[in-house]
Amino acid sequence: MTQSRQALIFTNDVTTHLRALVEEMSPSSVHIITDSNVAAQVLPSLSLPWPAITVPPGDDNKNISSLSHIWERLIEAGATRKSLVINIGGGVVTDMGGFAAATFKRGVRFINVPTTLLSAVDAAVGGKTGINFAGFKNEIGAFAPADAVIISTACFGSLPSSELLSGYAEMVKHGLLSSPATYTSLIDRDILSTSPAEMLHLLEESVRVKERIVTEDPFEKGLRRALNLGHTVGHAFESLAMERNRPIPHGYAVAWGILVEIIISHMSEGFPSSGIHTYARFLKENGYGAPAITCDDYDALIAYMTHDKKNDTPGAINFTLLSSPGIPKIDRTASSEEIRAALDIFRDLMY
Amino acid sequence: MTQSRQALIFTNDVTTHLRALVEEMSPSSVHIITDSNVAAQVLPSLSLPWPAITVPPGDDNKNISSLSHIWERLIEAGATRKSLVINIGGGVVTDMGGFAAATFKRGVRFINVPTTLLSAVDAAVGGKTGINFAGFKNEIGAFAPADAVIISTACFGSLPSSELLSGYAEMVKHGLLSSPATYTSLIDRDILSTSPAEMLHLLEESVRVKERIVTEDPFEKGLRRALNLGHTVGHAFESLAMERNRPIPHGYAVAWGILVEIIISHMSEGFPSSGIHTYARFLKENGYGAPAITCDDYDALIAYMTHDKKNDTPGAINFTLLSSPGIPKIDRTASSEEIRAALDIFRDLMY
Repeated sequence: MTQSRQALIFTNDVTTHLRALVEEMSPSSVHIITDSNVAAQVLPSLSLPWPAITVPPGDDNKNISSLSHIWERLIEAGATRKSLVINIGGGVVTDMGGFAAATFKRGVRFINVPTTLLSAVDAAVGGKTGINFAGFKNEIGAFAPADAVIISTACFGSLPSSELLSGYAEMVKHGLLSSPATYTSLIDRDILSTSPAEMLHLLEESVRVKERIVTEDPFEKGLRRALNLGHTVGHAFESLAMERNRPIPHGYAVAWGILVEIIISHMSEGFPSSGIHTYARFLKENGYGAPAITCDDYDALIAYMTHDKKNDTPGAINFTLLSSPGIPKIDRTASSEEIRAALDIFRDLMY
Repeated sequence: MTQSRQALIFTNDVTTHLRALVEEMSPSSVHIITDSNVAAQVLPSLSLPWPAITVPPGDDNKNISSLSHIWERLIEAGATRKSLVINIGGGVVTDMGGFAAATFKRGVRFINVPTTLLSAVDAAVGGKTGINFAGFKNEIGAFAPADAVIISTACFGSLPSSELLSGYAEMVKHGLLSSPATYTSLIDRDILSTSPAEMLHLLEESVRVKERIVTEDPFEKGLRRALNLGHTVGHAFESLAMERNRPIPHGYAVAWGILVEIIISHMSEGFPSSGIHTYARFLKENGYGAPAITCDDYDALIAYMTHDKKNDTPGAINFTLLSSPGIPKIDRTASSEEIRAALDIFRDLMY
């Protein structure tokens, strides 16, 4: 099974490109899917002529009830197999709207227009769609690539800085997976003072890295697991924070997770120690902060890593590691002693 | 996008083949999905070592609530991305179980073991999965081929004759789409006195016809529409019967629908009139009966045909017609005058 290539359009004129695409695709009808925040803050400025189906914002609402709502509205609006769905929003909207489109009448075409840096660099590209179910993130879903993704930095100006830092962490991850040069150009920079035009350029380079990986391995049988860099530890930070009712931005958790995982990479794959210090400095200088953990939390963090759905060998924790920037090593494991040692070094570096 | 070929296994020893397949696939766990009738009547004789998730029987239960039940049970049973689902049942089970598997953790492998002739020849093969939603049949679903389909006639002996006739109608449809020889060998026969071994042979020939068509056109962009032969009128018969609370077996509706559609084929595509009489005789001799309709029902039937989801040109009714057995003509239309005339002839032939 192969997966068709998505059209990726990098532009700061979303409306013109979207209208041209719709004309070219000549669907029987067009349906925007968005959330109430984006409907209020972004949609008016785009001046699009199509009706919108609106869901409540936030990951808590990425559920079967919102999904059913979307399906019902599509039916009411008379959508056919030749209709087109346009998802405009962050990861919740592109994940759930993509899954709704992929399953409505066994699949209608859809376009993603990510409105956050994180969804532009991560969720909107690569064909992973889905919803949370029974308390598990993205438990139900499908691999279904958007027919096109329109990526713009035009509306990022209105995003809080935490949103930008969060998305930027995924870009840095792509840099680490790609080449020393790409990686260095990303971390040698003050994120919040980067211009929209420059950010669009960096974003294009970053998304192309993901696109190459996904094209080679659309269904995550091998290489695509490289994209999990930072996420084994990152998800554990995120889950622990959630459990304590002090949620943290996904990208912050990934940024910290990358540091822990390159420390493990140093221990077992020869990742250079100078690279650890450079990366830690990048985190500090850009204001990523650090998770509120002590050594008393290690057991809980390791338990979360053990239950991560990326593990398919019972008992072993699956990591993507690096022998150096640009050289990922997938399907690695680490012992709990190694993880504890890496968390010690992480805390030394960050506090 | 291409679709991988399904392994089709024709055997009257299901258990041995299923155990061998599972061993070869070495899944992390195995989960049977079935309905309560099949669980009581068929599962015990198969002596399979895996736990079963059971849904209530019937098309009314092919819904989001049963689907959620399946997903929940899979989670509880600790299913992973490397697990295997085995759907054992009729079309409701293979459609819904296939969709559950295709969307659980973005897709796990599944095997179909159809237990009715209709599902063996139709639902279990070809990758269409889904559920009914908001009153519409198969409104939500995905194209997801089973990794393997094990087809047996061993348990058909216990099926009521109406089930056999119903499934056989789809086999005759495949014969009509394939060649005069295949078609003739199917209609020149007393269905209910055909032995299981002979039926397995006929079934294999019939399923191979569908397989060839689906392999060429997995997502129903063109050729696959040929499989809709008999279904435009058949669905209208079915919907009218449902509206009147006198439901009829799907295959009977298709069998009658084929007759109306070959009459239309005679009027507009040159299908030979002798073929109409041969087919009508086949229906009568095998006890298919006829729908309880008068000319007062024509408007309602045509309204159902107009709203069929196979239509993607507004206002036009889409038909698959035949210029002769073995030569289908897809994407044809007929006027309501032609349809009324064909229904008149149909009633003359059948009553």
